[in-house]
Amino acid sequence: ERVGFDEAILCARKSDAQLVTIMDRVLEQGESCLMTRLEPEVFDRFPAHHRARVDYDAVSRMGYFNWSRPRTTGPAQIAVVSAGSSDMPQAAEVIRTLTYFGAPTRQFIDIGVAGLWRLLGNVEELQKFPVIVAIAGMDGALPSVLGGLVPGVMICLPTSTGYGVSHSGQTALNAALASCAPGLTVVNIDNGYGAACAAYRALNMIRKAASLAQGC
Amino acid sequence: ERVGFDEAILCARKSDAQLVTIMDRVLEQGESCLMTRLEPEVFDRFPAHHRARVDYDAVSRMGYFNWSRPRTTGPAQIAVVSAGSSDMPQAAEVIRTLTYFGAPTRQFIDIGVAGLWRLLGNVEELQKFPVIVAIAGMDGALPSVLGGLVPGVMICLPTSTGYGVSHSGQTALNAALASCAPGLTVVNIDNGYGAACAAYRALNMIRKAASLAQGC
Amino acid sequence: ERVGFDEAILCARKSDAQLVTIMDRVLEQGESCLMTRLEPEVFDRFPAHHRARVDYDAVSRMGYFNWSRPRTTGPAQIAVVSAGSSDMPQAAEVIRTLTYFGAPTRQFIDIGVAGLWRLLGNVEELQKFPVIVAIAGMDGALPSVLGGLVPGVMICLPTSTGYGVSHSGQTALNAALASCAPGLTVVNIDNGYGAACAAYRALNMIRKAASLAQGC
Amino acid sequence: ERVGFDEAILCARKSDAQLVTIMDRVLEQGESCLMTRLEPEVFDRFPAHHRARVDYDAVSRMGYFNWSRPRTTGPAQIAVVSAGSSDMPQAAEVIRTLTYFGAPTRQFIDIGVAGLWRLLGNVEELQKFPVIVAIAGMDGALPSVLGGLVPGVMICLPTSTGYGVSHSGQTALNAALASCAPGLTVVNIDNGYGAACAAYRALNMIRKAASLAQGC
Amino acid sequence: ERVGFDEAILCARKSDAQLVTIMDRVLEQGESCLMTRLEPEVFDRFPAHHRARVDYDAVSRMGYFNWSRPRTTGPAQIAVVSAGSSDMPQAAEVIRTLTYFGAPTRQFIDIGVAGLWRLLGNVEELQKFPVIVAIAGMDGALPSVLGGLVPGVMICLPTSTGYGVSHSGQTALNAALASCAPGLTVVNIDNGYGAACAAYRALNMIRKAASLAQGC
Amino acid sequence: ERVGFDEAILCARKSDAQLVTIMDRVLEQGESCLMTRLEPEVFDRFPAHHRARVDYDAVSRMGYFNWSRPRTTGPAQIAVVSAGSSDMPQAAEVIRTLTYFGAPTRQFIDIGVAGLWRLLGNVEELQKFPVIVAIAGMDGALPSVLGGLVPGVMICLPTSTGYGVSHSGQTALNAALASCAPGLTVVNIDNGYGAACAAYRALNMIRKAASLAQGC
Amino acid sequence: ERVGFDEAILCARKSDAQLVTIMDRVLEQGESCLMTRLEPEVFDRFPAHHRARVDYDAVSRMGYFNWSRPRTTGPAQIAVVSAGSSDMPQAAEVIRTLTYFGAPTRQFIDIGVAGLWRLLGNVEELQKFPVIVAIAGMDGALPSVLGGLVPGVMICLPTSTGYGVSHSGQTALNAALASCAPGLTVVNIDNGYGAACAAYRALNMIRKAASLAQGC
Amino acid sequence: ERVGFDEAILCARKSDAQLVTIMDRVLEQGESCLMTRLEPEVFDRFPAHHRARVDYDAVSRMGYFNWSRPRTTGPAQIAVVSAGSSDMPQAAEVIRTLTYFGAPTRQFIDIGVAGLWRLLGNVEELQKFPVIVAIAGMDGALPSVLGGLVPGVMICLPTSTGYGVSHSGQTALNAALASCAPGLTVVNIDNGYGAACAAYRALNMIRKAASLAQGC
Ligand SMILES: Nc1ncnc2c1ncn2[C@@H]1O[C@H](COP(=O)(O)O)[C@@H](O)[C@H]1O
Ligand SMILES: Nc1ncnc2c1ncn2[C@@H]1O[C@H](COP(=O)(O)O)[C@@H](O)[C@H]1O
Ligand SMILES: Nc1ncnc2c1ncn2[C@@H]1O[C@H](COP(=O)(O)O)[C@@H](O)[C@H]1O
Ligand SMILES: Nc1ncnc2c1ncn2[C@@H]1O[C@H](COP(=O)(O)O)[C@@H](O)[C@H]1O
Ligand SMILES: [Mg+2]
Ligand SMILES: [Mg+2]
Ligand SMILES: [Mg+2]
Ligand SMILES: [Mg+2]
Ligand SMILES: [Mg+2]
Ligand SMILES: [Mg+2]
Ligand SMILES: [Mg+2]
Ligand SMILES: [Mg+2]
Repeated sequence: ERVGFDEAILCARKSDAQLVTIMDRVLEQGESCLMTRLEPEVFDRFPAHHRARVDYDAVSRMGYFNWSRPRTTGPAQIAVVSAGSSDMPQAAEVIRTLTYFGAPTRQFIDIGVAGLWRLLGNVEELQKFPVIVAIAGMDGALPSVLGGLVPGVMICLPTSTGYGVSHSGQTALNAALASCAPGLTVVNIDNGYGAACAAYRALNMIRKAASLAQGC
Repeated sequence: ERVGFDEAILCARKSDAQLVTIMDRVLEQGESCLMTRLEPEVFDRFPAHHRARVDYDAVSRMGYFNWSRPRTTGPAQIAVVSAGSSDMPQAAEVIRTLTYFGAPTRQFIDIGVAGLWRLLGNVEELQKFPVIVAIAGMDGALPSVLGGLVPGVMICLPTSTGYGVSHSGQTALNAALASCAPGLTVVNIDNGYGAACAAYRALNMIRKAASLAQGC
Repeated sequence: ERVGFDEAILCARKSDAQLVTIMDRVLEQGESCLMTRLEPEVFDRFPAHHRARVDYDAVSRMGYFNWSRPRTTGPAQIAVVSAGSSDMPQAAEVIRTLTYFGAPTRQFIDIGVAGLWRLLGNVEELQKFPVIVAIAGMDGALPSVLGGLVPGVMICLPTSTGYGVSHSGQTALNAALASCAPGLTVVNIDNGYGAACAAYRALNMIRKAASLAQGC
Repeated sequence: ERVGFDEAILCARKSDAQLVTIMDRVLEQGESCLMTRLEPEVFDRFPAHHRARVDYDAVSRMGYFNWSRPRTTGPAQIAVVSAGSSDMPQAAEVIRTLTYFGAPTRQFIDIGVAGLWRLLGNVEELQKFPVIVAIAGMDGALPSVLGGLVPGVMICLPTSTGYGVSHSGQTALNAALASCAPGLTVVNIDNGYGAACAAYRALNMIRKAASLAQGC
Repeated sequence: ERVGFDEAILCARKSDAQLVTIMDRVLEQGESCLMTRLEPEVFDRFPAHHRARVDYDAVSRMGYFNWSRPRTTGPAQIAVVSAGSSDMPQAAEVIRTLTYFGAPTRQFIDIGVAGLWRLLGNVEELQKFPVIVAIAGMDGALPSVLGGLVPGVMICLPTSTGYGVSHSGQTALNAALASCAPGLTVVNIDNGYGAACAAYRALNMIRKAASLAQGC
Repeated sequence: ERVGFDEAILCARKSDAQLVTIMDRVLEQGESCLMTRLEPEVFDRFPAHHRARVDYDAVSRMGYFNWSRPRTTGPAQIAVVSAGSSDMPQAAEVIRTLTYFGAPTRQFIDIGVAGLWRLLGNVEELQKFPVIVAIAGMDGALPSVLGGLVPGVMICLPTSTGYGVSHSGQTALNAALASCAPGLTVVNIDNGYGAACAAYRALNMIRKAASLAQGC
Repeated sequence: ERVGFDEAILCARKSDAQLVTIMDRVLEQGESCLMTRLEPEVFDRFPAHHRARVDYDAVSRMGYFNWSRPRTTGPAQIAVVSAGSSDMPQAAEVIRTLTYFGAPTRQFIDIGVAGLWRLLGNVEELQKFPVIVAIAGMDGALPSVLGGLVPGVMICLPTSTGYGVSHSGQTALNAALASCAPGLTVVNIDNGYGAACAAYRALNMIRKAASLAQGC
Repeated sequence: ERVGFDEAILCARKSDAQLVTIMDRVLEQGESCLMTRLEPEVFDRFPAHHRARVDYDAVSRMGYFNWSRPRTTGPAQIAVVSAGSSDMPQAAEVIRTLTYFGAPTRQFIDIGVAGLWRLLGNVEELQKFPVIVAIAGMDGALPSVLGGLVPGVMICLPTSTGYGVSHSGQTALNAALASCAPGLTVVNIDNGYGAACAAYRALNMIRKAASLAQGC
């Protein structure tokens, strides 16, 4: 693969027939694939022999098709940080994608700006991670605060939680993009898959640098 | 006055002739007035006898017309908090308006989210203020952080600083409105005059409650 | 609590499992909590032993969990003003939140700009309130009219009623923020909980000032 | 003319050469014309023999070209109402256009929602007018209040005054369109010419009805 | 009534209980009322004794409550023009409202810009109407074309038909407001009731002028 | 060239130094180029030896660099239609680009929807053109009307003329895209160059078909 | 037909009764018609004798009513290009419309920018087509890449696939309109019918040129 | 420094006096600083003794204050890719910031999607870079194409070049965020400084991994 990882199947807006065709082809080629935005009711309509090959999780709405868990080696180098229960599906999408790629993660929850002390209590730990995915909806203040405290690669994942002027995540997105904290990067609203891919790109480059250095 | 304070003259978009007529009328009635959004070049074109009666400040772009400073009594009960140099004009508009109303203020600058430690060093002090005006542009994260730490009346003043998705203050405005911190209130972008009026309304009610209580 | 009141549980977008976990924890710690945006059908799915501990109201979509009504003392100092039947859920959210906090309110309904005479008939009464929550959808003209007539702290709550260019409350929000009436403050669209918290912050400061003054 | 009045020349974005060509043609045909959005500096660059034929007014930025004032008959049937000094150019555009059409107007100024008593003092008078042009910027609350009090044809002219969420008149426009007051009609932001044409259409139909009735 | 006609009941967003209370009160006072945005399923849930008093129409989603048809006198003076079948509900809302007010209308359908010849074939007839309601969705070109051909009061009613950049009627609304045709007036998207009220205001003024003239 | 014509140089936002470098390179390679959005004051600052090689036109803000007019053969197959004087610069950009490409055009002006009779008088002529560029600002009604009357390739060029809800051409753009007239195509606001390229693509395919057919 | 093809019936927002009336009329006149946006459940509710005359396809949501397939002559001159499975309904709408018009098409799928090599492998083939419909959602990069490689008439059809900042197709639309590739033309989001009509206009002009040339 | 690099001074919107104060303080503390958005005319107004200490570049509008170039070691690991001359200022801002931080870069220009072959010719080289900053305005297609071809950390910098629906960079921003290419990250429009900081965060983590690995 040119970019270093497989593309996933975005199940939203695909018909049942299209999804079955894709799974057939994957099986034929003896491959596995990652399925995102797979609603429970769509999964339930899968033919039994396909459903049996899917490791499905309803919170992240993701399936691993024809996949066997790789042995994960080494400690987590990617931190996935979020404020609380509303952003759980997006956090799960990030973690499940990275698990599929074979990249261990460590999750930090209840790290919201409103309860600043909990966040501060974790800063020292977070400063050790080379890659951080910061998830936030509504006002999206978490990335700004975190970004001023840690040196790692910051990937901000705005979520569509909230109402009114939250504008389905647009405010959290804009807040992350306009942040005073320098060097934040951002992905599309609710794009947990994309945030995971971005984190994995960084991890790959770090691993490659380490193995090159080790080689000398 | 029904609402407890004078209306100000919004000088933007008024012709020189209109402004002179207003000042003439104010003089005739032996009154004073507050002039907002008064650009230096407009002020410079005022007739000399009017210009002599204006106490003008270029940072806040405000003038006190035919006004003599009241004796201010008691300690500051309104804190005006901002991140730094870019939001100075708006902070000045808040403070100058409250000075005109006879309400002492205390200014906190360099209290940005990026430098969280400076903010935390001031929290104890800020918790004592019954009214806080929190000024922030760009991502507007300051009000969210502050709002979770202090019990006073919070008036958020978003500013038009920033570029791109800052959208001339709209992102900071939305972030304050969508904040997770409970009980924040917000005024229009760059509306330092309005934030000051809101602070003054709260101060008036606090003063009234105190003098009623003292009366018993 | 640093800010003077408990945070509420925003039930929207939380799974049943997440809500049950939260209620379990609240019970364990012998506390109570306020639940907002709790849809009737979600409430109906609660386990019976939890449902029994919830004082639920379908209009405001709020529940008091494990809560016993405090003795409320003194007259209402917060007025909750709205135009009519369409904004009832938001008015209810404001009032139920303040009831939970132990703050008595007085409700004024049918105070719309279209029937200006009813509004004018209540002005004298409204001028006595130190804190007013003004609720309005569609064109949001009520806060502007009220704001020019009363001296108290004005908290405007725009609602998502209306269609077309009402833009789900955005027009009412902008009208309140851009109002000519000086010193209005605004909260997010349909954020009755936030308006109540803002009112409660002001009330707390007023009460504190009164008790300090009484102390002397 | 099919629609009952002449089209005007919108001078904005036309080159000097284009405007001269238009005036030449008007002269050749022995006609007159109304020029809108004619900036003073553009007018100053007109050839002298054309400038001499223009009755120019800088407030409304309008010129009457090759025109002689018609004898106006009868009392004013169109009221032009605005809040104050900021909306003066738009009010002037309405009045000057109707003057060109030979329709007398009566202007009401300082009729803002903030000073509700001044507005109420004029209601009885305003109820007599068959056609009212209501001009308002910022929050645009004036049309809503007026519309609930008078029976005439209501034409709302939103203006681009204000800043921040006034969004160059969009908020005032939306407030007028979303108004609770029934039967308001609206024209484009700052379109004083269009508001006048709309008023003139109504006046024409009223005059025609009257003369038909008189005929019987 | 100050404005010359009754306000209608906007049923959208009102609970069944609220609607029943309103109907009870109307009955008690021996009055009638007009109900708009009344969905069939809401109407079906009305108590039988109320349902019996409602003259309901599902296309316009309107009900006449406790109402008996007035004798309509004279020819139609209001034309209601639309392009075709998609805008039928809005046209029906205009016509049913005016019927309630006792104002006869004449409907022109299939008058779209795409089939320009049908429109042209009706121009002569349309030029006779003192008041025209022009209904258009999508690109909203109908009002612009019509407005250049007829002298009457033009009330444009943009509709939410269309998809993509139709933006739920916003494009048709803006096209009508920005029209080159002079003197068009506009109401909110899908606001058939408001368009009818505006037409009725004009009709009232025309009738009043006629009866005054006849009196002399 | 793969696409059948040269790319132009978009001069906006390029520094003088960058433009000179480009012209030097063009000269070196013995080529010519088309320069768009070339402001007069930028052109005036060109070195004399370059300025001498530019055939510049201030209305379209375009320059032909190092270019000699090709012999144009055959009749015009592309019609360029616009309403009037405000859209002249955009019409000029279309025509000058096509002239550069060697494609003769025929211009129709004063073809606005407001003066429908002028438009109708030209329909028969316009029906003969295989390619039509329809230019319109403000409400953008022209393409809709024209599109229902002619069979050729329709390329709509919305312009930024107008104010308020014209939104700098966005309303005209949306109206063309949402048009009821079937088969309209649209280019970016004020993109006369792009409209010309699109017209030229169509012309090329038509010419190619003709020469292929002639060959048989 | 003036424009060279029949208008289609847009079934969205039409009531069952309206659709039946239209089909009756088509039958009476011995014609056929094309029905777009015809949802399966609406089609299922058609009276049996009408349903029997409809050639319905659920992917494109289109019906051919009372239609018999014309003999198609000659090779496909219109290419319909899309990235993959999500844009299938829109591609189907284009192809089915052109089939109805009697214009053969050739479909290219899996031509996405992400898999650039597949796209490049088809360029030579695509360069032979005089007309190309390029379908793309999300970031809409396909038209830009294709437009720089082929000389034919380019008609871009943005789709509403994607989430977050895809903004229901607005981003893909804007990307196509703002493309650096010169001479792209664009239709409304998801407007497969319109894209087909535009392609058919071009095809008609090409065919006409060929037959004229052959004539000589 | 917690985040691994110095904050820059954003000179836009700061008064001359504020900038001088900042420079004084920097000098006093014997430090250096990076100044962004420093307009030539502002720089020219600096006091001579400060101007002498600024290494100023007008293209990037950046100054290095009191700074001496560090010895840069090792090959460039950050590629800065852009399409052409219009995006030069933003590319310069990225490169100058990284130079200040001591990180060597390699610049690729004329890599636009329109000239796909130039881009393809550089792919092999680009695949070697662990970090890539992809700069694009208008339709922003470059990041999508590049992102599917290279494995490194992708940081997209949308620029405000273009007009009409480019919406000052918003379209390029949204296209990058909505891209089909997996794992792209994005910064604010024209935020070259932020893109550089993000690249530097990644570089730091890579360097750290390498030196840790080397240590073992
Ligand atoms: N800077 C300002 N921002 C918002 N409102 C203002 C400002 N200055 C004055 N006002 C208000 O604007 C109104 C003055 O309008 P005018 O009569 O046009 O001077 C009054 O309601 C003032 O309270
Ligand atoms: N200030 C104005 N606002 C809106 N439309 C105007 C204005 N002045 C003139 N017009 C209209 O704009 C059109 C003139 O366009 P043009 O042919 O470019 O001069 C005519 O339809 C006029 O009725
Ligand atoms: N006025 C214009 N509007 C839109 N695109 C243009 C214009 N002039 C030139 N272009 C295109 O913009 C690109 C030139 O970009 P550049 O390399 O920065 O000169 C090429 O793709 C041109 O075809
Ligand atoms: N060009 C720039 N774009 C975005 N942020 C910047 C830029 N230059 C400096 N900054 C950041 O803006 C903040 C500086 O704000 P200030 O204290 O007002 O100078 C710091 O957080 C800098 O890292
Ligand atoms: Mg959150
Ligand atoms: Mg700031
Ligand atoms: Mg209301
Ligand atoms: Mg006003
Ligand atoms: Mg229509
Ligand atoms: Mg035009
Ligand atoms: Mg796609
Ligand atoms: Mg570019």
